[in-house]
Amino acid sequence: AALPTLALAQDGKSAEQLAQHGAAQRIATVGAANAKNVILFIGDGMGDSEITVARDYLKGANGSFDGLDKIGQPNLSGAKENGTGQYTTFSLGGSSKDAGKPVVTPVTDSAASGSGWATGTKTYNNAVSVDSSQNPQLNLIELAKAKGLATGNVTTAEIQDATPAVLESHSTQRSCYGPQGKTDGSSDDSAKRCDVAQLKQNGGIGSISEQLLDTRADVTIGGGSKYFNQTAQAGEYAGKTLWEQAKERGYQTVENDVNAFSALSYKENQPVLALLGDGNLPTQFNDTPALTQKLTEQRGAIQCSTNPSWLGNKNAAGNSASLADMTDKAIDLLQANPKSSSNGFFLQVEGASIDKQDHAANACGQIGETDDLDKAISAALKKVDLSNTLIIVTADHAHTSQIVGEPPAYALSTILKSPVDGAQIVVSYGTATVTDPDAEDASRGYNDGGMEHTGTQLRIAASGPGAFRVDGLTDQTDNFYTIAKSLGLA
Amino acid sequence: AALPTLALAQDGKSAEQLAQHGAAQRIATVGAANAKNVILFIGDGMGDSEITVARDYLKGANGSFDGLDKIGQPNLSGAKENGTGQYTTFSLGGSSKDAGKPVVTPVTDSAASGSGWATGTKTYNNAVSVDSSQNPQLNLIELAKAKGLATGNVTTAEIQDATPAVLESHSTQRSCYGPQGKTDGSSDDSAKRCDVAQLKQNGGIGSISEQLLDTRADVTIGGGSKYFNQTAQAGEYAGKTLWEQAKERGYQTVENDVNAFSALSYKENQPVLALLGDGNLPTQFNDTPALTQKLTEQRGAIQCSTNPSWLGNKNAAGNSASLADMTDKAIDLLQANPKSSSNGFFLQVEGASIDKQDHAANACGQIGETDDLDKAISAALKKVDLSNTLIIVTADHAHTSQIVGEPPAYALSTILKSPVDGAQIVVSYGTATVTDPDAEDASRGYNDGGMEHTGTQLRIAASGPGAFRVDGLTDQTDNFYTIAKSLGLA
Ligand SMILES: [Mg+2]
Ligand SMILES: [Mg+2]
Ligand SMILES: [Zn+2]
Ligand SMILES: [Zn+2]
Ligand SMILES: [Zn+2]
Ligand SMILES: [Zn+2]
Repeated sequence: AALPTLALAQDGKSAEQLAQHGAAQRIATVGAANAKNVILFIGDGMGDSEITVARDYLKGANGSFDGLDKIGQPNLSGAKENGTGQYTTFSLGGSSKDAGKPVVTPVTDSAASGSGWATGTKTYNNAVSVDSSQNPQLNLIELAKAKGLATGNVTTAEIQDATPAVLESHSTQRSCYGPQGKTDGSSDDSAKRCDVAQLKQNGGIGSISEQLLDTRADVTIGGGSKYFNQTAQAGEYAGKTLWEQAKERGYQTVENDVNAFSALSYKENQPVLALLGDGNLPTQFNDTPALTQKLTEQRGAIQCSTNPSWLGNKNAAGNSASLADMTDKAIDLLQANPKSSSNGFFLQVEGASIDKQDHAANACGQIGETDDLDKAISAALKKVDLSNTLIIVTADHAHTSQIVGEPPAYALSTILKSPVDGAQIVVSYGTATVTDPDAEDASRGYNDGGMEHTGTQLRIAASGPGAFRVDGLTDQTDNFYTIAKSLGLA
Repeated sequence: AALPTLALAQDGKSAEQLAQHGAAQRIATVGAANAKNVILFIGDGMGDSEITVARDYLKGANGSFDGLDKIGQPNLSGAKENGTGQYTTFSLGGSSKDAGKPVVTPVTDSAASGSGWATGTKTYNNAVSVDSSQNPQLNLIELAKAKGLATGNVTTAEIQDATPAVLESHSTQRSCYGPQGKTDGSSDDSAKRCDVAQLKQNGGIGSISEQLLDTRADVTIGGGSKYFNQTAQAGEYAGKTLWEQAKERGYQTVENDVNAFSALSYKENQPVLALLGDGNLPTQFNDTPALTQKLTEQRGAIQCSTNPSWLGNKNAAGNSASLADMTDKAIDLLQANPKSSSNGFFLQVEGASIDKQDHAANACGQIGETDDLDKAISAALKKVDLSNTLIIVTADHAHTSQIVGEPPAYALSTILKSPVDGAQIVVSYGTATVTDPDAEDASRGYNDGGMEHTGTQLRIAASGPGAFRVDGLTDQTDNFYTIAKSLGLA
């Protein structure tokens, strides 16, 4: 199909130029296609290497994911339009100290990257939908609500974590979870976790959790329930916990209860806030710690096993809350919403712990979370019509895991044996910056520092109206325009 | 555009099944588009991380390569059709010992991977266009010649190196460079380097260099001239050096002479064999050894400098032989060839030393070689008509370099400062399997082992007729069909 004139971004834009809204967009005009609904799937930390590790193990090297690989695959998704491409993810500062003086930073965190697609504005690591000057930038849920669309936000992380937070709040620090900071309400570290000017008692916009309640998406599902035990310090709900506030404001609330989650149904003017664990939700697979060369060779090739506390396991009542279950429920709730039939919906679904398990050098952990995301995509494909719904699958940044031929000498690694094609897969983790003085003695190996994000361009794939907008080389901020244009928001 | 029915590869094919010609192809039918000419650009080891390292440094994080990023970019290449996608690169055995008993191997070498796109057949690491049972598989140059197309093969490596070799020979071992093995002819290690049954004196098909002369591509340009000083041991040219044989067989030969290379022109029935260095050609940028955490922090951020012995520098006569120059010359020679006007041409161009410099943990080395490949693509874009020429850009496998936020504790790294956007880029190398006992004392750091290839899926991009065939998820062997179908060879 003929496209309008496009242009590669100019080389060498300054950090100050790139800090403007839309300035990092690589493709200036993205055509006229419209979608009624958009679902954005984010695998946090799911670079091409993470996808391949999981595919090699779960499907065989020549196999394919039923959901993850179907999106963007020509004539396979069922959509008329499909697209696959690469996108860049850099940010404009390594931390809040760079706010106000943007500097091109090749490796982003989840906050700057999420802000990129949520608002179209490049910003500093740690920024939640605020720009380099710490000014709030309108995000896709705000824009979608303003146009009358139904909206949803689903994650396996704490709902206050950066990736969901960029759609529910504007925060100069990603750790400003609640009015008492990042606690369960029994203590207060807000002075450390928040820019205090942002707190309600200081006349600010409030913490991420409080803003979430103000933003009022139709469907919010994730973890992080304990932070809603914090108490508002100012405003209409001062002295009440955030759970109390949510109920008073008409939310259908679910707190750590899979059966109540499973029973949720659409009720007019009663948005859903279902938080199914105190913190991040349990992973599908048990931990397989990466080891030093000698120890990993001694351990030999291993396979992954299911974590009994994973919410995707059926409970006594036959209910479960895998990411696929959560996605399925979110789509049901959105489709039952009259706003959806009139104006469509926007839904973000995050597989959050690919990243978290990759930081922990846990090969099976990241594989299980990739599987969980894949199955969530398959669940969505069963529910939606790709003639009016655009599905996008991508990540916020790539990560450390690499597939190598033999255990490396200094990096940690895990040897896996694929149950599908029998291949021996060596997954290497070499980017930790902190060393463990106990070195070779520890069963874990010498390195207990967390592994780092990486800065490589990564896969973006789409099926449905406007899917071609992800073809070629784009930047993460282009994803904002892809979605906003498709939904008529910009 | 509507495409024919496609299907994802079945999960869990056995290694034996995958060893069949075409069995790893992911997209079964690839449409009816035809191209008159195909140019395949291979960046050896050029995974998405290697592309991003080079772009971040040379163009800025928001910048774009003029050639490399233009291919596949919607409406920018000038082509009606553009495609970008990801492809898998696994092989069927870690070495020749797996020949005959294929095993799925997540990380390929350059020989198995090159054989994949050259022949459409998955094979073991070390195999040069022979299958897992060591049976020769027809390659794209043989198929193109059989259809009357002009053919070319260009590399910055030794012309006997795996990537060019897969188009000029069939060898059970990649090191079987000549009748005396991998020597300059003053000694003989053929018993070690070759399957002796393959040598001509034993009734075999002969070494890679001898087969190159038999294959008789119209244009062959690269390094590795010293191996042509070896002497044929049997056959019509027994007792003569390979250079003598080449001349007797009507080749226009150039040996380490940039001026003679620059003066080459098309002559009927006189194919070009221009080898411009004894071994691999010099890199564009000087070495920047990766160091341990402490040493790299002491050194601080550095920038790349040009290697005086790079052939891309103009010599006293004003001539040069960068990969762009070689590509330009190859296209001139092919376009002047009447076979080309009648039937078209197939040309492969390899930027070989992205891989070699990545193995050596040399950030500037790999960046300069990526730049050289980018400029070769730009040179091609100036010469060809994308309405009848398909240009494909991809790699044979990904590699070790990663972009991280800070120097890692155990991996080696180099801190670069981009001359374009000023970003500080930390490039990490952590996959070496061999340790250096001199450890911290060595200026190089503790690790002199070579870095490893990695197994991640990677970018494939195309512009021109049939470019959509690279969209979505394909396997490296699909690239054989993409090219063969476009040229009407299969
Ligand atoms: Mg996240
Ligand atoms: Mg090569
Ligand atoms: Zn992240
Ligand atoms: Zn992370
Ligand atoms: Zn290679
Ligand atoms: Zn290599």
